[in-house]
Amino acid sequence: MTGLDLFDPISNELNLVETGLLASIDTDLPVLEQAASHLIKAGGKRLRPAFVLLSAKLFGDDVQHAIPLAISLELIHMASLVHDDVIDNSELRRGKPTVMSQWGNRLSIYTGNYVLAKSLALIAEYQRRDVIGIMADTSMSICEGEIKQMRSCYDVSQGLKDYLRRIERKTALLIAVSCQLGAMISQAADEHVQALKRFGYYLGMAFQITDDILDFVADEEILGKPVGSDIRQGVITLPAIYALRCSQHADRLAGLLSSPRACADHAEDIVAMINDSDGIDYAYYASNRFAERALRQLDLLPDVAVRESLHRITDFISGREY
Amino acid sequence: MTGLDLFDPISNELNLVETGLLASIDTDLPVLEQAASHLIKAGGKRLRPAFVLLSAKLFGDDVQHAIPLAISLELIHMASLVHDDVIDNSELRRGKPTVMSQWGNRLSIYTGNYVLAKSLALIAEYQRRDVIGIMADTSMSICEGEIKQMRSCYDVSQGLKDYLRRIERKTALLIAVSCQLGAMISQAADEHVQALKRFGYYLGMAFQITDDILDFVADEEILGKPVGSDIRQGVITLPAIYALRCSQHADRLAGLLSSPRACADHAEDIVAMINDSDGIDYAYYASNRFAERALRQLDLLPDVAVRESLHRITDFISGREY
Repeated sequence: MTGLDLFDPISNELNLVETGLLASIDTDLPVLEQAASHLIKAGGKRLRPAFVLLSAKLFGDDVQHAIPLAISLELIHMASLVHDDVIDNSELRRGKPTVMSQWGNRLSIYTGNYVLAKSLALIAEYQRRDVIGIMADTSMSICEGEIKQMRSCYDVSQGLKDYLRRIERKTALLIAVSCQLGAMISQAADEHVQALKRFGYYLGMAFQITDDILDFVADEEILGKPVGSDIRQGVITLPAIYALRCSQHADRLAGLLSSPRACADHAEDIVAMINDSDGIDYAYYASNRFAERALRQLDLLPDVAVRESLHRITDFISGREY
Repeated sequence: MTGLDLFDPISNELNLVETGLLASIDTDLPVLEQAASHLIKAGGKRLRPAFVLLSAKLFGDDVQHAIPLAISLELIHMASLVHDDVIDNSELRRGKPTVMSQWGNRLSIYTGNYVLAKSLALIAEYQRRDVIGIMADTSMSICEGEIKQMRSCYDVSQGLKDYLRRIERKTALLIAVSCQLGAMISQAADEHVQALKRFGYYLGMAFQITDDILDFVADEEILGKPVGSDIRQGVITLPAIYALRCSQHADRLAGLLSSPRACADHAEDIVAMINDSDGIDYAYYASNRFAERALRQLDLLPDVAVRESLHRITDFISGREY
């Protein structure tokens, strides 16, 4: 996914976020500095900072005050990535070696914890009990989501609702909170804060569904990891859930997806079977439904230029341009 | 180490901390509830909550307001323990199976993160930017300490200063902060806050040195883990550092301690050699020096009954009663 020009209205601020992310690693331990910088330089779409900044910009052009919050939310996201890489034993993320593969499990766990603590330090500066409370609750929910994801692997009995609840915790919540807090620290009215929270939630759902689709259809170069990575790890996403119900190969698919060995050895066959069902189309349909709901929230927000950007980003992220 | 009667002045409040710790695990995910409750029920000395409460009690008899802070500090400590168990691959802690051994690495990492987020939520309630800032800085320092400890394993060239800097981050800082914050949220004067912070720091240093000694001299029943656990993992503590300099077997010891294989296979020999040097006495001497410094800080604090308790706890923890 490219389309970074969608973030043009906040490109200056995103550059400051980038500088601030690197500056946030303020330690005299060279190995921690290297590992954390590697994590940051590995990139990523910086979606959460972007949504903080865009949400803030709905309520005033100067969004300098939102930069520490934007950095903080990206750090929380990074902490969960570096811990996930330990847990999944991932060698590559976005096509680059993970902290885990270069420095090992121990340092990865500590780097994650360090980055998490740093994000707390940044949030503390706002002196807002409500903001910190939301961050704490969100962090706990993300943990719950990760545990749910872990326990749902190879579980072919899971349904649409299980999947949606899982991606809600895994992705939608942090994007919802990015939008919500971006508005909260910009003195937005409560109705606007709530509308942005809902916008972020629906958009996050659409985004994760699209991201899960990419694991079936994108090529390795775009994805930065091999096609079928989810399947190889037994992660059952929406296209698979559809295929498990509606594919002509449903029974065979269930047999394969419930076996860690089969998922590892026959990922390509499984991907082909799912592509052969209408699972991908169904997932795009679901993603679009969430995107539509996100767009409806935008109508409740101030009619300023940046609202149009949020509209275009929603179209892009939900795959409406595919 | 027993001596829990030393905490008599705050025994009611410590019971409330215990209840509060269990109540803090508020999740509808049974497996997370079980793992986190297991972690809490595995016990521990609750030193950090005790120091929060005792410090608060120096400035007024009613210390109800300090209970959430006390719970929060114990949760932070627990989060670091559960992550350490993943990293060390520990089967037992305090004689009981670890979360890692019962639920595996993935769930242990997430349980640690959940507990950390919960501690943040509790701290947020105080609406004190300074308190949250101190917690964030402390969390980062603890990570740095853990990384230092990890990199110092099997390193026989390390000296006294390396060791002291390591245990400072690993232990002394969180005890210092427990005392400091207990005073801060009790409207103590700044000079008292600073004296308590120094008290906790020196006491924490004494405590960790004594704890490191126990790995050589206590029996498994008291320790809840086999004697020589540190040595087996290549963790070089003060008695070993002394022996590496002054034992007649210094060269042989250096050869053994720098080899992971030898540490694992010949831990008993190594422990015997260190016991045979004056390393244990030297470490007790060092612990006592820190305890003396801690006691001097007490002179700067209000002359109330609980100060005498802090005095006796210091004597006990530093091993002055051994």
